[in-house]
Formats: sequence, C-alpha cells, structure tokens
Amino acid sequence: MMRMLHWLMTLILAAFALAGPARAEDGYDLWLRYRPLPAAQAPRVGAITVKGDSPMLQAAATELQRGLSGLSGTRVALAPTAVAGGIVVAGARDPAVTALKLPTAALGEEGYLVRAVRLSGIPVTLVTANSDRGLLYGSFALLRRLQTGSDVAETSAPKVRLRLLNHWDNLDGSVERGYAGQSLWDWWMLPDFADPRYTDYARANASIGINGTVLNNVNASADSLTAPYLAKAAALADVFRRYGIKVYLSVRFSAPVEIGGLKTADPLDPAVAAWWRAKTDEVYAAIPDFGGFLVKANSEGQPGPRDYQRSHADGANMLAAAIAPHKGLIMWRAFVYADDNPDDRAKQAYADFKPLDGKFAANVIVQVKNGAIDFQPREPFHPLFGAMPQTPLMMEFQITKEYLGMATHLAWLGPMFEETLRSDTLQKGKGSTVARVVDGSLHGHALTGMAGVANVGRDRDWAGSTFNQANWFAFGRFAWNPAADSDTVAGEWAAMTFGPDPALVDKIVGIMAGSREAVVDYTSPLGLTHQMATGHHYGPGPWVSDLKRPEWNPVYYARADRQGIGFDRTASGSNAIAQYAPAFARPLADPATTPARDLLWFHHVPWTHRMASGRTLWEELVTRYNAGVTTVAAMRRDWAALQPQIDADRFAKTATFLAVQEREARWWRDASIAYWMSVNGLPLPAGAAPPAHDLAWYKAQSYPRAPGHPG
Amino acid sequence: MMRMLHWLMTLILAAFALAGPARAEDGYDLWLRYRPLPAAQAPRVGAITVKGDSPMLQAAATELQRGLSGLSGTRVALAPTAVAGGIVVAGARDPAVTALKLPTAALGEEGYLVRAVRLSGIPVTLVTANSDRGLLYGSFALLRRLQTGSDVAETSAPKVRLRLLNHWDNLDGSVERGYAGQSLWDWWMLPDFADPRYTDYARANASIGINGTVLNNVNASADSLTAPYLAKAAALADVFRRYGIKVYLSVRFSAPVEIGGLKTADPLDPAVAAWWRAKTDEVYAAIPDFGGFLVKANSEGQPGPRDYQRSHADGANMLAAAIAPHKGLIMWRAFVYADDNPDDRAKQAYADFKPLDGKFAANVIVQVKNGAIDFQPREPFHPLFGAMPQTPLMMEFQITKEYLGMATHLAWLGPMFEETLRSDTLQKGKGSTVARVVDGSLHGHALTGMAGVANVGRDRDWAGSTFNQANWFAFGRFAWNPAADSDTVAGEWAAMTFGPDPALVDKIVGIMAGSREAVVDYTSPLGLTHQMATGHHYGPGPWVSDLKRPEWNPVYYARADRQGIGFDRTASGSNAIAQYAPAFARPLADPATTPARDLLWFHHVPWTHRMASGRTLWEELVTRYNAGVTTVAAMRRDWAALQPQIDADRFAKTATFLAVQEREARWWRDASIAYWMSVNGLPLPAGAAPPAHDLAWYKAQSYPRAPGHPG
Repeated sequence: MMRMLHWLMTLILAAFALAGPARAEDGYDLWLRYRPLPAAQAPRVGAITVKGDSPMLQAAATELQRGLSGLSGTRVALAPTAVAGGIVVAGARDPAVTALKLPTAALGEEGYLVRAVRLSGIPVTLVTANSDRGLLYGSFALLRRLQTGSDVAETSAPKVRLRLLNHWDNLDGSVERGYAGQSLWDWWMLPDFADPRYTDYARANASIGINGTVLNNVNASADSLTAPYLAKAAALADVFRRYGIKVYLSVRFSAPVEIGGLKTADPLDPAVAAWWRAKTDEVYAAIPDFGGFLVKANSEGQPGPRDYQRSHADGANMLAAAIAPHKGLIMWRAFVYADDNPDDRAKQAYADFKPLDGKFAANVIVQVKNGAIDFQPREPFHPLFGAMPQTPLMMEFQITKEYLGMATHLAWLGPMFEETLRSDTLQKGKGSTVARVVDGSLHGHALTGMAGVANVGRDRDWAGSTFNQANWFAFGRFAWNPAADSDTVAGEWAAMTFGPDPALVDKIVGIMAGSREAVVDYTSPLGLTHQMATGHHYGPGPWVSDLKRPEWNPVYYARADRQGIGFDRTASGSNAIAQYAPAFARPLADPATTPARDLLWFHHVPWTHRMASGRTLWEELVTRYNAGVTTVAAMRRDWAALQPQIDADRFAKTATFLAVQEREARWWRDASIAYWMSVNGLPLPAGAAPPAHDLAWYKAQSYPRAPGHPG
Repeated sequence: MMRMLHWLMTLILAAFALAGPARAEDGYDLWLRYRPLPAAQAPRVGAITVKGDSPMLQAAATELQRGLSGLSGTRVALAPTAVAGGIVVAGARDPAVTALKLPTAALGEEGYLVRAVRLSGIPVTLVTANSDRGLLYGSFALLRRLQTGSDVAETSAPKVRLRLLNHWDNLDGSVERGYAGQSLWDWWMLPDFADPRYTDYARANASIGINGTVLNNVNASADSLTAPYLAKAAALADVFRRYGIKVYLSVRFSAPVEIGGLKTADPLDPAVAAWWRAKTDEVYAAIPDFGGFLVKANSEGQPGPRDYQRSHADGANMLAAAIAPHKGLIMWRAFVYADDNPDDRAKQAYADFKPLDGKFAANVIVQVKNGAIDFQPREPFHPLFGAMPQTPLMMEFQITKEYLGMATHLAWLGPMFEETLRSDTLQKGKGSTVARVVDGSLHGHALTGMAGVANVGRDRDWAGSTFNQANWFAFGRFAWNPAADSDTVAGEWAAMTFGPDPALVDKIVGIMAGSREAVVDYTSPLGLTHQMATGHHYGPGPWVSDLKRPEWNPVYYARADRQGIGFDRTASGSNAIAQYAPAFARPLADPATTPARDLLWFHHVPWTHRMASGRTLWEELVTRYNAGVTTVAAMRRDWAALQPQIDADRFAKTATFLAVQEREARWWRDASIAYWMSVNGLPLPAGAAPPAHDLAWYKAQSYPRAPGHPG
C-alpha cells in the first residue's frame, strides 16, 4: 500500500509538471481542445491500435492519443494489437475488417466508418476506410463524436473533391483582408525553420476534412514561382502531407515576363507555353504531389489572357496543358469586371464566362464567388451556378469577414453558406440547388470543389476571435457536405470549443444563429449592398461617390434619390435577372414577388412603397437597421449571462468584442439613416431614435490604418 | 487509507485537468517558467502573506503564488497572517518589520531585502522594501533565487533611475529593426481590448526591474499624440501601472505643424510652446503618471530645432518647460549626423552636443548610443560619455540585433554591454568608467538612465528566438546594475530558462559567452564597422559604394585600397581620438598601442602591417573571419550535445537557427574575403579556404524582403 501511495505521489508530481502554471485559454487549441469530459461522458479506452505506420497513420495515432488522453484525463496507451475496449484504426482491406463485411465500398477514397464491432472476437471501436486519409478523417470524426457527447457510430464520405483554403497572403507577410495578424507563413525563415504552428494548422484542417491550401494571394507576386519560394512552399508541403493536405499556388499570369524574361505572356505564344511547362516541371520537382494553380486574371488590374485578345479559356487551357502531365489542376476565377465595361457589374462575370461553357480543358475548374458582386453580407447566388452545365464550377466563399465586421464582430457564417447552397437555381427543374452544382450531381461532374478565403493568421487564436474560429470550422463542414445544417454545425463547434454541456451549447448556438442576419440588418438591409467605406471597407460609407470607377462607389449600388432606392435589375433596368433560369427570374421581375431580403438588389423602389409588413419601405429600412442593433445588444446580454460557464480569458475577449460590435452597429445604423434622410428628405419614422451625430460627423470619420487593406 | 487513495486519485485527475494536452515549450513563459524543481531544491512554503492590497502588491501576491506553486509542484496558498515556513511580503514600516531593525534605509525607493527572519516569533522568509514597487521587485528576486538554486537572501537596489525599453514600433504595426513579428501593441484593438499578453510583457519587465517603456518609434508619427492614440496609450498604461512601469512616448518635433495646424515648429515661437504645453496637459489628463517624451531630432531626416536655426538645447528645453509642471522628463537623443557635414560621422554627435553641456534644463537627459556610429557588433564607447559633466547622459543600447544576425544568430549581448560599461573614459582619472557616467556617480547626477531598443514583438517566443530572450533579460540586469557581470547574468538566465542543473547551465553559458565575439569576427573583425548590406543590413555588403550619402556606404568605413584598410581617426586623419580624454586618446594615436580589436576603427593600416600575433594584417583578418565561423560551428556542436537535456521544441528551433548561423557566417567570411582580395590583389593566406563563390556571386545576392527594414 505504501508503495502504491509513493507511486501515486509520483504520478501527481508528474501531472503537475506537465501542467506547469495554469494554462491560459488563449484559443490556440481551437476546437481540438480535448479537455477532460465529465466523468459520466469520459471515454474509457483500453488502448489505441493503429494498423500501419505511414506518416498519415502516425498522425492519426498521435492525434487519437492526444485527444483521448485529454478527454479521459488519463494517458491512453498505443498498443500493437487490439485490446478489449480499445480503439482500432485499420484499413478496409485488413483481413479482420474484411471479415466483418462492412459497407465500406460506398466510402470512396476519403470516407470513413466508425462503429463498435467485435474484431476477431475482441470488442473494440473500429475506425475503417479505404485509404490512410480516410482513416485519419475517421480518427478525427471519432474524437469529434466524443467531444460532442454523441454516439461514436458514424459513416461519412465527402461530397466535394477539392476542399481548399485560399490564403490571400503576400510574400512580405501581410494578408489582404486578413484580420488575425501577419501571414501564418514565415517566408523569411522558410525553408529552414518549420514552425510547429504549421503542424497545428494542418491538424485543424484535417479535422474538418480540408485537403488543400492555396498558400498565396490571388493578387500574386510572380516571385512565388522562383526557386527560393518554391523551396519554401515545399517545406510547408512536407509538413502538410501527412495530414492529407496538398499545396497549391496562386500564379501571376504575366510571370513569364516578370521572372521569365519573355517579352509576352500571350497564352498562344509557344514560348510562353514552353515557359509554363518548364516552370510547372520545376514546381513538381520541388513538390511531387503539388495540387495546382489558382489564377485571378483580367480582374481588378491583374494581367490575363485578355491583355492579348485571348479568352479566359485560352489562358486556362494553356496552363492546364502544362500541368496535365503531372495530374495537376487549374482553378480559374470567374471574379472579373472590366475597366471599360459600363454594364451592371453584377452581370459581367456571367457575360464573360457563360459563352465559354464547354471550352475549358478537363483539368480546369472555374471558381465562382457565392454572389455576383463581392462577398457582401448577403447576395443572391451567383447566376453562373447552374448556367454552365459543361463546366465544373467550384464555390468560393469568404471566411474572413471583409464586409462582416472584420475580426471583432460576431457573425456566424453557417447560415450564409447554407442559404447560398440551398438556393434552388431551377436550371434543371426543382431541386437544382447550388449545392448540387457544387457537388457535381446536377450536371454529372466528378471534378468538384469549394474554396474558402481563409481567416487565419499569426494571432494566437488563429482567427482574431473565438467565434471567427467557428467560420473556419463551418467552411470545412460545408465543403465536406454542402447539404450540412448550420445549427448542427454550430452545435458541434460550440461543444468542441466550450464543452459538451447541452444547455451551454444551446445558448451559444442561439447567440450565433441570428448574428449574420444582424450584420445584414445594421449594414445593408433589404438587399442593399456594398455600402462600406472605401478601400479597407471598415464602417459605413453610403455617401461615397467620388471614386474613379463607378462600381467602386456605394452610390452605384444603392442608387438612392429623392424618390426611391435600389438597383433595378429587371428588364426596365440592367436586366441582370435574365441571367437566372426563367423560372427563378420570373418572380424577381416584380417587387411584390421578390423576397424582401433581396428587394433593393433587384429593384429601384419608391421610399413610399408599401411592404408586406404594412410599413413603407423607408419605415421598413429604419426598422431593419434598428433590428440589427437590437440583435447585437441581445447577443451581448446573452453572452454576459454565460460568464460563470466560460473561462475568464475567452469570456472577456468576446464580451469586449460584443461591446465594440454594439457600438459599431449603432454607428452603421445612425450614419446610414442620417445619409438616407439627406437624400430622401423624409422625417425619421415615428419611434425611431435620431442619429447620435449629424451627417457631417459621420462623413468626417477616417480610419487610414484600418487592417487588411492591400494598401 | 482508502479515503486517502480516493483523495489522491482526485488530485491526480485535477492535475491532469490542469494540464490538458502536453504544453509545448514555445518560449512564451520566458525566464518565468516556474516548472517544478527537483525534489531536493523544491521550495516548501507554508503560505504566502502579503501585507497590503494595492494593485502592485496584488501583482506581487499573484506572481509569488504562481511561481511557488509551479516550482514546488503544489498549490501554495495565500494567507492573511504569517505562517511558519511561509513567505511574508511587508513594507519596512510594518511594525513587525521595523522591530527587526533591518538595514532598509539603504534600499531607497526601489530596492528590496529578502531574508530568513523570525517575524513576531514566526520563522518566515521576509521580503521587505520602502515601497510597493520595491516589494514587487523583491518578490521577483525571491523567485529568481529559487529558480537558480541560490540562497534566497539578497539585498539590492538599482543604481540607475530610468530603466527603459524603447520600442521602435510604428502605428501600422510594423517594427523598425524588429525581427520578432509585428508590434506587441495592437493599436487597432486598443483601447477596447487589453490583450493578456500586455500583462505578461509587464511581468517580464518587472521581474528584471524595467520601470518604463517608450511605446513608439523614435521615427515618430505625429498621430501618436492625437486623442485616439493617447487613449490607446492610456489603456496600456493602465495594464503596466501595477507592475511599476511608466509609459513614455516618442514625439515628432514637427507635430505642432502636422496635427496642430501651426505654421511652424520653431521651439522659440510662443505659439509652439503653448501648443506643447496644452498637448502635454492633454497627455497627463489621459495618463496621470506619464513618464515623458523621447525625441529624435535633426537626425536621418527627422525634423528638429535646427530646422529653425535653434540648438538641440533650445528644442529640448522648450519641451522640458511644457512637461516640468507634471514632473515629466525629456529624453533627447544625441544620435545625430547631418546631411551637409562632410566630417567623420563618428565625430558629429560630440561636435553638436559637447558645446551644449550645462545648457539643458534640469528635467532633460541626453540619450547617447553606446558607440559613435550605430549599434555595430563592436564600437569603442561613445566619446560623449564623460565629456558632458554638467549634463545627465543616459545609455542607449540596442537589444534587437539589427547588425548582429537579427532573429536567427545566437549573439549574447551581455559581453557587449559589459565591455562598454566597464570602459574607462579616464575623464576624471582612473575609474571614470562609462558605468559611472551612466549611474551618475562620476559627475554627481541624480537623473540617470539606460534605454534598450527592444527586441520583442508578437512572435510567440517574444524575441524571435530563445537566446534573444537572454538579451532582454541582460538589458534589465545591467540597467539595474551597470557593474553586473555578464557570465553571472547568463547563468541566471540559463537556469531560469532551462532549469537549474549546474552542469547544463555551465554548458549553455559556455555557448553564449563567445557568441558576440564570433559575430564580430565573421562580420567586422579588428575594428572594421558597418560592412552590412544596404537598408535591411542583412548579410555582407563591403563593396557597396553607390549610396547617396558617403557615410551610408560600407566603403566609407573600411577605406580599403591596394595598400591598406581602416579609418584613420588620429591627428593625421579625422582626429576623432581628440574627442576622448587625452589619457585615453594617447595610446590610440599609434597602431602599436591600439588594441587589435579596435585597430581599423582608429587607423588606416597597410595590409602588410605586422600584428602582435606575428601575422600580417591581411593574414590576421582572414584568421579572424575563420575564427568566427569556427566558433559558430563549435556552438552548434555544443548545442547538439545538449539534446537529451532540452525539450524537443526549443532544442529543434535553436539547432535550426545555429545551422542558419553557420551557413551565414561562412557567407559573411567568404564574401568579405573575396572582396578584400579584389581590392588588395593579395593571395589567400596559406591554409585558408578559398571563398565558395566568386565575388560577382556575392554581389548578386539580393534580399528585398529581409525583415525589419523601415521600407
């Protein structure tokens, strides 16, 4: 007994040694926190047995050991053979697994199955799959089920092939539209030093099924293709590989001129094609499993094939030919609008790309933003979805909140992803959802993808706030399954991030659920769009009208005058609605049958227009601005009530941020109302609070050092 | 017995819960790691009793509890009254302390005494002092003594009054000469969000006695004095105050024009003086205990009084008058050299400032860099030290390694600080050391100070590498005591950072001890200076000769030609040696009596000059370059041998960095030798390895994205 006591004392000291000073909840652990579960829920695992020793399976074993040791509060051992009550990770072709005749064929190359079985007579929890990657995903799934207090049984396979983060990270360490510190990639210290943070980034991505990362900004420097930078990218690929993550690069279309010494970047010039072939060979020599190139061409000043009177297809196909021998891909962005095109900006991508349907090489996928303008708090789905049946289209969502409050505002994007993906294009009858375009099932494409513009940087909590982490998580879950349910995903994230107490999770999900709609309301209700201040997009700027290109000005989008407000996109206006399927467009021709949320997107409407609510448009607009502020105030109160259940650091940071958000929501509301009143000359609707300052005050606000601006 | 077992099991689970997943040794804890000591050394503390509850004493109590709990591996309680075997923190005027008749008078306002006593009959370890700040410092001292395995008894008081970090941090988050990430200050989120990191920064500083911090770059933006930025600075001051740290600001001399709307910043213009008085009042309204202003004027393009034909004293005294009613200080930098002055750059600060001795107001202190050029790996002490007896002079050291390998190279600066401070100016006979100028004892000044240009940023390990942390630590210890011993300080830091095993500490101190001399050897041996590449100062550029101002070019400093090398600062040259005391200057007039380490600083010497070693100058130079490389290789080997004793993360990072350093030391050596051979036409000395590349290759290296460059 005394020896046992001595042993226990030693164990206690070891545990404290492991602990050191109490660890701050600084958010670094993300949703992979693995804190001990309540005794009733804590897993009791005999041991972990991983059959195989590839780097990916080693990663799975390490993660399971880390996660289960954390969740159970006791170190769980790895064992060479299955132990009763243990966890076994084994491929579907393992004889003992095959004997169970599980439905593994449907799992494909990336899916997994987790189930309680008797394996060669031993009761275990089995994780099986057709590949090491599937086993890694299954291991993370098992941990997620435990963290959320769910039954561990799960069978799942991704519906989308490319699940990618797009980092708008520059080689100087800045991040365009980044609100979470400098670039994760320390280009200066690469390839020598592989920061352990790179591994944790890969773990987080693998845990939500992300399988690729575009390292650099779509506004790319040609230097990223030079030998020193390829060596740096290769060092990152070496870290990411064991987590099933491929590296991709954004390329500058004029690189043959800038770093190749050629006189042209014309895609039909044989010397240009040869340069790209040689450069691509060099890339693959450095990174044998390199994923491919992402290209922003002829958009916002970027070079592209149209500089040489060639089409986007000409440009994409030339690169596709260079990379095809390596089985690489070209992701070609459809986000284009031209200096010299006076037509409605919302129509230009469709006008450019629709005629190219069927003209792209087989290893090209066209990457389309969720809406036709630019990552606004709400946009109708992009008319290209469903309109290019012969062309694989991938979705581009923005996870970083360029237009939704940057780092500070709590805006859960799950509902936004869900809203777009569930939108029914009606292009092949009812059920032709955007999700089915993206997952390839609508038009039978095997090459499918979803990209998310990353919100992560070098900040300790990765994303600038705890709740921004949820948007990274959500992107992964929706990329895995475009039919995912926003509330379910929010609940998973909340349980993993704050603990599995269902009452707490419900309250947090409640705070999240209406948060994006609140941002819509206090910045751009009823289909208004792009009302943000210039350049950095921080705060309101509905009055801005002096920028060089018309479509850079908020007044271009709101078209407010004494009589009314909104952008007429019907036949009497730009007729953008004609870019949608007729069945979808038909109700949009009439304000009465247009959803209120999109009203001013599609129509110029008199201020006196009577809404379904019975209020005039002007009254409704003010009501919506107020609703945004009211919702944020309620979110803040609801969060304050959770103080006893949340650790001090994460509680305080979110509480502070919600206070900032409430202040800024009022600012948005008041500045917007003050401006509209100066345009429409109408009195403030009865009962509405007058703006805190006059319009001149709002116009005078200036934030030259607002973050994330490319400069 | 079973109940005890149950209790122990509960304790184990609690300890593991505290631990969560194993915590990475990412360097965040600095020298305040507080990991459990070996059983024989672990403190056995009954409880901690802190008499008083000011914020500063609360900080002391929190730190003692954190530290002692960590070091002992068991939670140490706070108790309202003294406990046998406990620790008592009580002011010298506490009746029970007074009764002990301890020698507390000599402690002054900031010193402390730690001693085992019987307090009212109870055996305790007492920390006492004449102020809360002294008690805080004493608490940190007690923890340091325990961490280093020393007897706890210590009596200490600082010899220097102002012990300040200077942050060259810009309002956009960049850090001039910063190699550890973005600015610690998240100006964008201030004043709303006070990152917990600010508290840890304050803890680290307080632990080494730093009592002030200049928040922004000496190349200052006037905006830092606007109301929004003063509110942000005030929020930082609110965090730092309880750790005894005052906030200071760098100011732009032309601020009255830029943000005040005045037409002039002439210090003798009454409107300018009135503007500064009002601005200073505004600063103190925001920060009642604000420390003062730091000014870089008429230097490297900064505005200053000489723009209006006024002297530095005119400028400083105008600001001093504005801030005097608040008991604030002006720190006026002597780092000046003029566009239009063709004289030896090393002479210009002395020429400008020496005539102003006695002309500065009582609340002005002149801040002088350690050497007359610019933070080189080695410089003779600045001739102003000892030459301005009527003027308080404070030392400015550079902790960030602009010229000593930036983040990656291991260069322990303790020997550099020590070398400068122990230099004997001979201005008032033997023993007139720089340290005695700085501590005020040589000329009887009460206003004394030492500033260190900070090397910290938002990187997780604060300083870009583990060993860079040692330089921050050293700065604090030398500011507290300019007579400190470099090896002793290195040993303290090593024990606190890696654990108190004396054999391990000796080995680490051994690696550190010769590291700065190695940098001198592989970059600029024998008194060479400023041979770095342009702008960013990364890597060698001895051939650079095309920059606009002569003194920006490395060739200006080396003056190498076919016959010889070095800068003649004797009477036959610039006669800079006449700026030193005659007794100090005399041996410098002759190469034979000039220390070899400073030879080329003071003399232009033939390549064939015979050194004391018996080698020619050329042979000696090559020998020194080689010695630098050899030392780094040995440091690397010595570190590799410590792998079993160092945690994996910190071991790997330093190992990687030493590999980089060895590669870059070779680069420096080879590039320099290749260039000197092109100048002197001499063959490589026998036995020396030829450069790996030809000179053209070295000249072609280009690093436009090297960090820390102001742009």
